[in-house]
Amino acid sequence: MIRDATATKARILEAATTEFAAHGLAGARVDRLATRAGANKERIYAYYGSKEGLFDAAIESNIEQLLDAVPFTAEDLPGYAEALFSFNLAHPEFTRLALWHMLERPGVMARLPQTAASTVRKIEAVGRAQRAGLVDDSLPPDQMVELVLAVVHSGLILPPGGDPDDIAARQKALRTAIQRLAAPSN
Amino acid sequence: MIRDATATKARILEAATTEFAAHGLAGARVDRLATRAGANKERIYAYYGSKEGLFDAAIESNIEQLLDAVPFTAEDLPGYAEALFSFNLAHPEFTRLALWHMLERPGVMARLPQTAASTVRKIEAVGRAQRAGLVDDSLPPDQMVELVLAVVHSGLILPPGGDPDDIAARQKALRTAIQRLAAPSN
Repeated sequence: MIRDATATKARILEAATTEFAAHGLAGARVDRLATRAGANKERIYAYYGSKEGLFDAAIESNIEQLLDAVPFTAEDLPGYAEALFSFNLAHPEFTRLALWHMLERPGVMARLPQTAASTVRKIEAVGRAQRAGLVDDSLPPDQMVELVLAVVHSGLILPPGGDPDDIAARQKALRTAIQRLAAPSN
Repeated sequence: MIRDATATKARILEAATTEFAAHGLAGARVDRLATRAGANKERIYAYYGSKEGLFDAAIESNIEQLLDAVPFTAEDLPGYAEALFSFNLAHPEFTRLALWHMLERPGVMARLPQTAASTVRKIEAVGRAQRAGLVDDSLPPDQMVELVLAVVHSGLILPPGGDPDDIAARQKALRTAIQRLAAPSN
């Protein structure tokens, strides 16, 4: 029975990712995603409490997948940026999900447990890399982390079906930009 | 009569900015914004054709205001970034409007006439500044423009009521980051 519940939750979160990425929180329909997940609405509300709770859980689940797939390497920020860019390109629904979440649950993402903990770890790692002389220290570590993420995401607000040459150019610019931002000056 | 139409359009675009910034395209209600603008729905459709047309017109109008308020200075990108950051802080509805537009009208913003023309002018200006040795040329001018905008916007995804110290720290980091990205290396 526990294994059943785990499988059901995984299907619900997958269907929720698709539904919220397409329509956002206000536009999402729980009955539509329930049908897609092969679960019933009552069970979804029993697990997640509300449509908002399910939206937050879908973001957390996607962030967990990202954290597993793309380890943060403070000593190689250009490499991290490229890996994150590639992950996001392969999961376009994740970028949309995150943008909707910023608009419809403003300020909530930073407080989600996974996100908050992983941000703290990233900031600590950049601080250590700065003290070791591996990363420039003219920016405080929290701002450096935020900038790296912002620069990665700047390349992702692409029209659907961005052409491969354009993507390759962005990936190259990304590496150059992060090197300029993060390489120690001395 | 022409003056009347101009004033009515200005009121409609202001009400549309408020409505779309709060609810996005799918969630916006034309009758609610018509009431706020003191205009009738039929006239709005006569002017803008559709809810999508009105959403695009609201974005264009906001971009025109931004272009008037914040001149692009390719030879001083850190200064431009700071001015743009301040403008966006003073107009929080503009950031929300732009995020909704990316989600609900993907790929359309770059093709809006004002936006497209101003992007071309920015890229040309950065190209000239690079040739004059005022801006580093390790990135192509279009990528440099995009990165500067991305770095500015990274500081704006703030929880509502961000505290002044935090904002001041972001503004300082912004200037440092753009200097590192844009200052000629030689």
